[in-house]
Amino acid sequence: MKLSRLGEFGLIDRIRQRTPIGHGVRIGIGDDAAWVENRVGSSLVTADLLIENVHFKLRWTSLFDLGHKALAVNLSDIAAMGGVPAYVILSLGIPANFDSEQIDAFYRGFAALATKTGVALVGGDTNVAKALIVSICVIGHAAYRPVRRSGAKAGDDIYITGTVGDSGLGLFMLQQRMTGKKRPLLAKLLARHHRPTPRLNAGAELAKNRLATAMIDVSDGLMQDLGHICRASGTGATIWEERLPLSPAYQAFASKVGTRYALSGGEDYELLFCARAHHRGRIHDLAQRLHLPMTRIGVCARSENGLVVVNGVGKPASAGTKGHDHFMKP
Amino acid sequence: MKLSRLGEFGLIDRIRQRTPIGHGVRIGIGDDAAWVENRVGSSLVTADLLIENVHFKLRWTSLFDLGHKALAVNLSDIAAMGGVPAYVILSLGIPANFDSEQIDAFYRGFAALATKTGVALVGGDTNVAKALIVSICVIGHAAYRPVRRSGAKAGDDIYITGTVGDSGLGLFMLQQRMTGKKRPLLAKLLARHHRPTPRLNAGAELAKNRLATAMIDVSDGLMQDLGHICRASGTGATIWEERLPLSPAYQAFASKVGTRYALSGGEDYELLFCARAHHRGRIHDLAQRLHLPMTRIGVCARSENGLVVVNGVGKPASAGTKGHDHFMKP
Repeated sequence: MKLSRLGEFGLIDRIRQRTPIGHGVRIGIGDDAAWVENRVGSSLVTADLLIENVHFKLRWTSLFDLGHKALAVNLSDIAAMGGVPAYVILSLGIPANFDSEQIDAFYRGFAALATKTGVALVGGDTNVAKALIVSICVIGHAAYRPVRRSGAKAGDDIYITGTVGDSGLGLFMLQQRMTGKKRPLLAKLLARHHRPTPRLNAGAELAKNRLATAMIDVSDGLMQDLGHICRASGTGATIWEERLPLSPAYQAFASKVGTRYALSGGEDYELLFCARAHHRGRIHDLAQRLHLPMTRIGVCARSENGLVVVNGVGKPASAGTKGHDHFMKP
Repeated sequence: MKLSRLGEFGLIDRIRQRTPIGHGVRIGIGDDAAWVENRVGSSLVTADLLIENVHFKLRWTSLFDLGHKALAVNLSDIAAMGGVPAYVILSLGIPANFDSEQIDAFYRGFAALATKTGVALVGGDTNVAKALIVSICVIGHAAYRPVRRSGAKAGDDIYITGTVGDSGLGLFMLQQRMTGKKRPLLAKLLARHHRPTPRLNAGAELAKNRLATAMIDVSDGLMQDLGHICRASGTGATIWEERLPLSPAYQAFASKVGTRYALSGGEDYELLFCARAHHRGRIHDLAQRLHLPMTRIGVCARSENGLVVVNGVGKPASAGTKGHDHFMKP
C-alpha cells in the first residue's frame, strides 16, 4: 500500500502494532512522549542522522540492511562508551512514492537487531520527504563508568577489536561493479559494510573491568578516529602496519590495495581502545572469553610524535589519516 | 565562512564552544555519546523531525525563529506529559551552500529557548543535505506521574490554555502575502506561529497536582488532537464554539474566517486537557497563579456522541476535524 493511502497515523499504528513493549518501557509509541525507566543513576545518549545519497544509496543497499545498519551505528557509539543500550527513538522522512512493504523491510532489519540487543523502540516521528531520512537517538544505561576518548597516556597499548578495512574495501569494490571469481569474497566484505556488528559486550566488559583508558568506535576510519583519541588525550601514536588485523577476504585483495582501507576506509564499527601495558594478560583473557580478537596494533606516544604508521622495518609507511568529513571538499 | 571550508569537525567545535555545560551533564558534546544524570527514576523522551519545504520554508521564517521553534515543539510534547525537560540532542542536515552565520542564527534561536527553559544541549550529528533537516530529541525528567492521552471520562471538562488559531491564521495570511493596515495584527499572529511558547509550567503543575485526566499539545489542530484524546480514552466530546479563546488579533479577522483556524489550524502548542468537574476551582486558581488562561471549552461525552462542535444556540456547527497528516493527499 502506498503511504499516501496509509497515512501518517496509519503508519504509526502499523509500527506500534509490530513493536513489542520492551523492558523498562511504561509508555511506548503513541503518546506525546515515551516514559521509560532509568535502571541506574545516569544515561548515555547518542544520535545519528542518515540521509539518502549522502550516507547510503538505495541502489547499493537493501532496506532490511539499512534498518539494521542505522541502528547498529548508534549502538556502536553506546558500545564505545561502555554503556548498555536500552531505548531507541526512530524518526523517518519517507519519499511519498514509497510503499508500506518497503518500510516494513526497513523495520524488519531494524527490529531484528533491536530484539537481539534488547533495545526497545519507544517513539519517533514520521514525515514525508524528498529523499529517505533516518534519524535515530539511542539512550543507554551508564551501568559502568563511561570510557571517554581523553584518558590515553603515552606508553599505553592501542588495540582494535575484530578486523578492519572490510567495510571500506567492500564499498569500493561495489562502486567498481566488481564481478567474476572473487564475488564470494566481495559478499563477505559487503556483509561487514551492510550489517556491521556493534561490539556491545566488548565495550561493556572493557568499561566494567576498567581496562580501557580511552575508547572510540571506528566510523570515520581507523587513523582519523585514532586522531580523535590523540587530540582528546593530548598524545601521539604509532601504529604498526603489519599488525593490522585483516580478514581472509581483505587479504585476498591486499596485494592490490595494501592497508589503505584498513587505515582509512571507515565504517568498521570496531572498537579502538587504549590500555595500560600491564593489562595485556587481562585483555587477552577477555578476548578469549568473548571470542572476539583484540589485536594490539600500536602504542601511544608523546604528542610531538604525531600519528605515525610504521611498516615492518620500522620505517614510516603511509600517513593514512584521511577519513571522512561530510562538509570538506576533497 | 562556508561550511565546506569550516568542515564537520570545525562546525562541531564551534557549537561545542558556544554550548555551556548544563546541569546534570557529565559528558556533553564531543565524545561518542553524552553522559547525563537521571534526576528521578524515569524519563520522558520525545523526538521531531523537521524538513525544509515540508514543515517550513526559509522564505517564510528566519533561521533564529526556526531554531526556537524546532526546540519549542519538542518541549511542548514534554509539557503535554507533565514532564520537566532536561537534555536535548540536535542533529542537522545542512545544505553545502549554507554559511556559518546562518547556522549561528539558527543556533542562537535554539540556545535562547534552551537557556530559558534550563535544557542542556548534549549531542547530535551534523551532515550535508540537499534541504535543511532538523532532527531533535528531548529527554525530560518524569518528576510527576505523566499524564497520558487516555485518562478522560465522559463528563470531564475540556480545557485549552492560552488562545488558539493564531498560528494557523498567521500562516494562512503570510501565504496570502497580506499587506496594508492590518500588518501589526499579522505580526502578532506570526509571532505565535514562529515562536510558540511551550507550556512547561502549566503541564508540570497539572501533572503535579493530578488535575488533568488526559492531556495533549495542539500541534495538528484542536479538533484533530482532541480526536487523539477521545480515541485513546474511548470517549466522545462536545466543543462550544463560542467559548474558544481567541486573541484580539484573531478576533479582528474572525468575521472573515470564523473559528476555522481555532478549530483546525494547528501549531498552537497550547495544552488541551480534560479534568473532573469538581476540580474547576483548583484549575481556576492555577490559571491565576501562572497568569495563563485555562478556558473551559467543552465536555467529554460517551463515544457514541462523536466529536461535535456546537454554536451558541446548541446547534451543530462545523465538524472541523480536519487537521494535518503528512502523507494523506488532500
